Amino acid sequence: MTHFKHLKKAIQLIAIVMVALSCKNQDQTTTPSDLESNADHPKLMLTSKSVDDIKSALGSVPLFDKSLERAKQEVDAAMAEGIQVPIPKDMAGGYTHTQHKKNYAALQKAGALFQITGDTKYAAFTRDVLLAYAKMYKSLPRHPQERSYARGKIFWQCLNDANWLVYMSQAYDGIRGWITEEERQTLDNELFRPFADFLSIETPQFFNRVHNHSTWGTVAVGMIGLVMNDDELVDRALFGIKDDGIDSAALDNDGGTIKKEGQKSGFLANLDEPFSPDGYYTEGPYYQRYAMYPFLAFAQALETKKPELKIFEYNGGVLIKAVDALLNLTDADGEFFPLNDGQKGMSYQTASLVSAVDIAYYYGNQDPRLLSVALQQDNVQLDATGLAVAQGIHQGKAQPFIKESMLLRDGAKGDEGGVAILRANYEGGTMALVMKNAAHGLSHGHFDKLSYSLYEDGEEVLQDYGLARFVNVEQKNGGGYLKENTSWAKQTIAHNTIVQDETSHYKGIFKESSKHHPEVTTFETSDPNIQVVSAVEANAYPGTEFTRTMMMVTLDHHKKPLLIDILNVTSDSNHKYDLPLYYKGQVVATNLDLNTPPQLSPLGTKAGYQHIWKEATGIPSTENTQFTWLDNKKFYSATVLTEGKDQFILGRVGASDPEFNLRRDPMLIHRRNNMKNGLFVQVIESHGTYNPVTEKAENAYAAIQNIKSLASPQGYTALELTLQNKDRYAVIVVDSAFAKAQHKLELSNSTYTWKGTYYFKQLKN
Amino acid sequence: MTHFKHLKKAIQLIAIVMVALSCKNQDQTTTPSDLESNADHPKLMLTSKSVDDIKSALGSVPLFDKSLERAKQEVDAAMAEGIQVPIPKDMAGGYTHTQHKKNYAALQKAGALFQITGDTKYAAFTRDVLLAYAKMYKSLPRHPQERSYARGKIFWQCLNDANWLVYMSQAYDGIRGWITEEERQTLDNELFRPFADFLSIETPQFFNRVHNHSTWGTVAVGMIGLVMNDDELVDRALFGIKDDGIDSAALDNDGGTIKKEGQKSGFLANLDEPFSPDGYYTEGPYYQRYAMYPFLAFAQALETKKPELKIFEYNGGVLIKAVDALLNLTDADGEFFPLNDGQKGMSYQTASLVSAVDIAYYYGNQDPRLLSVALQQDNVQLDATGLAVAQGIHQGKAQPFIKESMLLRDGAKGDEGGVAILRANYEGGTMALVMKNAAHGLSHGHFDKLSYSLYEDGEEVLQDYGLARFVNVEQKNGGGYLKENTSWAKQTIAHNTIVQDETSHYKGIFKESSKHHPEVTTFETSDPNIQVVSAVEANAYPGTEFTRTMMMVTLDHHKKPLLIDILNVTSDSNHKYDLPLYYKGQVVATNLDLNTPPQLSPLGTKAGYQHIWKEATGIPSTENTQFTWLDNKKFYSATVLTEGKDQFILGRVGASDPEFNLRRDPMLIHRRNNMKNGLFVQVIESHGTYNPVTEKAENAYAAIQNIKSLASPQGYTALELTLQNKDRYAVIVVDSAFAKAQHKLELSNSTYTWKGTYYFKQLKN
Repeated sequence: MTHFKHLKKAIQLIAIVMVALSCKNQDQTTTPSDLESNADHPKLMLTSKSVDDIKSALGSVPLFDKSLERAKQEVDAAMAEGIQVPIPKDMAGGYTHTQHKKNYAALQKAGALFQITGDTKYAAFTRDVLLAYAKMYKSLPRHPQERSYARGKIFWQCLNDANWLVYMSQAYDGIRGWITEEERQTLDNELFRPFADFLSIETPQFFNRVHNHSTWGTVAVGMIGLVMNDDELVDRALFGIKDDGIDSAALDNDGGTIKKEGQKSGFLANLDEPFSPDGYYTEGPYYQRYAMYPFLAFAQALETKKPELKIFEYNGGVLIKAVDALLNLTDADGEFFPLNDGQKGMSYQTASLVSAVDIAYYYGNQDPRLLSVALQQDNVQLDATGLAVAQGIHQGKAQPFIKESMLLRDGAKGDEGGVAILRANYEGGTMALVMKNAAHGLSHGHFDKLSYSLYEDGEEVLQDYGLARFVNVEQKNGGGYLKENTSWAKQTIAHNTIVQDETSHYKGIFKESSKHHPEVTTFETSDPNIQVVSAVEANAYPGTEFTRTMMMVTLDHHKKPLLIDILNVTSDSNHKYDLPLYYKGQVVATNLDLNTPPQLSPLGTKAGYQHIWKEATGIPSTENTQFTWLDNKKFYSATVLTEGKDQFILGRVGASDPEFNLRRDPMLIHRRNNMKNGLFVQVIESHGTYNPVTEKAENAYAAIQNIKSLASPQGYTALELTLQNKDRYAVIVVDSAFAKAQHKLELSNSTYTWKGTYYFKQLKN
Repeated sequence: MTHFKHLKKAIQLIAIVMVALSCKNQDQTTTPSDLESNADHPKLMLTSKSVDDIKSALGSVPLFDKSLERAKQEVDAAMAEGIQVPIPKDMAGGYTHTQHKKNYAALQKAGALFQITGDTKYAAFTRDVLLAYAKMYKSLPRHPQERSYARGKIFWQCLNDANWLVYMSQAYDGIRGWITEEERQTLDNELFRPFADFLSIETPQFFNRVHNHSTWGTVAVGMIGLVMNDDELVDRALFGIKDDGIDSAALDNDGGTIKKEGQKSGFLANLDEPFSPDGYYTEGPYYQRYAMYPFLAFAQALETKKPELKIFEYNGGVLIKAVDALLNLTDADGEFFPLNDGQKGMSYQTASLVSAVDIAYYYGNQDPRLLSVALQQDNVQLDATGLAVAQGIHQGKAQPFIKESMLLRDGAKGDEGGVAILRANYEGGTMALVMKNAAHGLSHGHFDKLSYSLYEDGEEVLQDYGLARFVNVEQKNGGGYLKENTSWAKQTIAHNTIVQDETSHYKGIFKESSKHHPEVTTFETSDPNIQVVSAVEANAYPGTEFTRTMMMVTLDHHKKPLLIDILNVTSDSNHKYDLPLYYKGQVVATNLDLNTPPQLSPLGTKAGYQHIWKEATGIPSTENTQFTWLDNKKFYSATVLTEGKDQFILGRVGASDPEFNLRRDPMLIHRRNNMKNGLFVQVIESHGTYNPVTEKAENAYAAIQNIKSLASPQGYTALELTLQNKDRYAVIVVDSAFAKAQHKLELSNSTYTWKGTYYFKQLKN
């Protein structure tokens, strides 16, 4: 600590001296020294035309004015703290890490502020901070923290260095025409060109991949290339490095493959591969959110400087589609579904989504729904795109962004499964089911084929655990991934999907899981009262096939939908199966005979089971097990079809967790032993409310009374649901192998005929 | 279930027939049948004068109009469902229970609506429902559920029957002048007089106590007595029953004494004993909230009918003071501190507090702060008090209700300890410490002398568990107290206070605990930056004395206060001590050497210890143990002074809980073995924030670096606190036995002189 304090003081002293120097300098350079360079800048996010447009609009477009004012306050606050460019030392969350992040965030805005306001204090501050970096950069070794497969110089990993360069390129673009030729030479040659080489040629394992790391890396190099008119750098960014010498067996810190044999690289390759034709990014929304900013910012710059690339039309206009997909991958509060490694709470309020929404509006179809998202963000980019959005809002063009059900196919060709979202929007509320039938999702993927989570009004009902990491909390492994991310969060049992023999899908082997994907066999949402998705996973356990159908059904006289979950298992041999339900809150009632042990033991020894405390076991007392819980002042129930030897486990996360890295969240596991072919069925419902002020419990009991499995021919699964009010419903699903134009079935003395892969109708009493 | 459905249908049929009958009847009785009786009514909450005042104000006082409109909607909705007066059968949460509650809530409003609007549909509905009760009442046996020490007829316990009568008295008051003489005779003689006798003479163990049950009971009898001009009933209510034959050893369901030898009874006795001169109600705020309504409603009626009683001046004007005390016993969101048995989430939004605020405003000093509470409630009573409040708001008289630090003394004379509240109100936030140094609090009391809880911005930081009960959730023991309320929630270890030898205070014996109370020896809040409360508990464990001092200290350059907790133990022999800290959220970091066992065992076998899973043990690595956690996106730390053989336990509630009745909440227990005299010191702070959208962790580390105990003479405890920034502070507290006008102390070569019981000052570096 003491050493650190001294260092900080020393830096502050240097900063004071430099500010003094810069003030002196400033007087000499208030006029541009190089007219040609000046005319050429800015050219990334701003152009001389857009600067003129903005200047003439100032004062008349409230959201733009507000955003500008906020940026001024941020930069003014940063300037008041003086220049702080410390020698890199800390992990995420530590002082040097945080300060270097603050620097690039402030300077990106300072560059724009100089252009828009003409106030040279922003240009001088930007120049002086950059010169401080230039002074230090060339002699910097790689960062002293040795954790990364691609250590940076400013930060512990190149990824953060690339963040720095993406933002600082914009800062530099803002002032490069204003500084002296000598300063320009210094910054070009002592800082930015070496920085670009460091991120690319000197660290090919970081630069030459298809991965969000390389998206940032290539964009950083490409943007600074555009700023410095360096075509070689721009080409390097677009097409990658030819001979990188990367071993195809090499892995990154997350266990992800660095580069497959024959893999293309560069920015365009990163735009080809991870996006599906629907704009879904295979790593999932949390990383899509992270990657969208460099994708879109560089696209914007390329559209200005290299319009011949038609980058916004590239690959079927995937960039604009991707923004729409990303906005749809959120709950009612705009928080991203935490598929794969995703930190909960991240939402479209994040700065990179402000840019994404503005750019998608401007370069896309001026979709008026985007304006209502921008209104919630209450912020716009300080460029032509942000101005257009602020003007659109001011002109009253905003329309609500109502999220509908949708299938987002995965894979570059859209043929690698996909994420299905079913939504019910009813008066006063909304429910969303997210079912993950997608490809593995690169190194941040989880082993959870056919898993799902359920949301009501922006709150989790059945949760996905998310990641095991406290991003930027230094005390927790320097803010990096915790070892429990691998031992718990990625494992199948940590998700609402089926596990065979206490082993994760694909045995938890990344390489195997990356070879396969589920098939989505039904996605039907045209009737909002009966929405259905079915998917098949045939490779997670060799010899076994799962078909899972999820129906979101809204009945007459019921406001909220029922969720019917039908999971068929066929296998060539007997296995043990576990199907968990990650409810939240407190148990209210169950008809299970519960047995609570005097001591708690872990449920197993591997594949995540070692992290579950077995709080109770329960034996079904009837063919239907009912489990009711209270969460967020709402009553929820699961009604589960059970067989003779079924068992339930009430578990809780937290075993084998010596550093208390995991949340102590509960789950209910439906276990069946020695099954070859079989059926798991459950109906989930949100049925009542509890008000702690009036102390009234409304509809505390489930609407569903009973689920009955009806004998049916091969290829069909038939059920009868009975409600407490005695209404009965028939549910039939057809195995994808038995699809045909018209179905006809005799069941319990009734004849059912229908078209399509499922049947759902009320029965006469 | 089937039986239940048939019953419901039958009742609905009866209801339809009765509505048909009543419609016919209504035509015959649209004019008052008895002018004298009419002139005499209403007289409880409304009078003919206040009705006139209200009528002439309608349409010009927005909040009153809104409240009236809301009441109409509620009653119209109840009328649309038809008359439902089922044979009593269910526990709380069940159909018959809920329906009878709905009936009295609707009829109370219907009576007022008839008076204010003149619309006879409200009168007819009220009459018809009451006649349905009259038809059934006399032949009703006690309720079939046998759980209560005082079973009701309409409900499982007399308490609910008394609720019914308090509300129905008002309903009856509204229409008694309008119905026929024959109907009046029927309702007086077949329903209300027998009802009053049942609650009093026939159930003296319920009626003749000093307890919230008897408050409701006496008010019910008194109100119906006033309505029927029955002075005998009113006297019975005010002064109780003379010879009740109650055994002084008898207990209620909660283990509370029914009646002490020689105890007075009746409404006035209930007003004398449980209230302190500061208006604190010894059962605690949750039950005070419950009891305030009958207290105040009856007082309002008595003020009208028996003004000679001067009821609002009774006992030093305690009723008005009590409303102020109750409003102060809430967090920033208006939720009551869950002292003793209290269900969390109950707040001053509850209907009984709407009445309380309105009545206190009208009959008190027209305190303009009450208007801002009424504004938050967004509702007023439909009487003169509500009109006055709504008018006050409309005239712009409302002032903020800023909650300040206060000591609420306990005991009829104010000499039985008290509840201390320290608050820090800073820019953008507020922290509140509640320290419970009060008397036992009758049958709903917990064994937690000198315990405390801590709130920030209306969220719990260090929690009190509250009660173990799901009020009105039928599946959870009929909505009644769970057995874990006794085995866990009442026990000392469930609270933030000290436990000796794994035994609760007073061995958990209600009778013993009721004999004693702590002494509050210091309460000093005149300097908002240094607020101090000290209390002594000398009887919880014979031979041992605890002195606990809690300081809420706001330092220069710190927005939020530090909480310094100094607990001195002196004893005549060696004991083991446990001091728990009920934090919430996730562990971020600790310098303890943690040891997590492969299996979890309960921490002990009794006194609540059987309900704690021992998740980890920790051995201090230095003389200061630091423990940092993240909750509600904020970083908190406890820095604890530790000795050589101290041990910490990271525990979690939930062991020995076969029905999953308890929340799985965590705690950190500081354990010391074989101590005779000693000192526990901890400093709690809220120091940082985490933003999951920006992913920034601000001030994730504690400001406190070190606590040092300084050698000091007997009677003094001296500490030195060192912050991370090297600032140092001296803290000295004086044992109450050593109090004197001026203190002088030599410590570490410095001389300290001060007046008062504590010293706190920054030291020079």
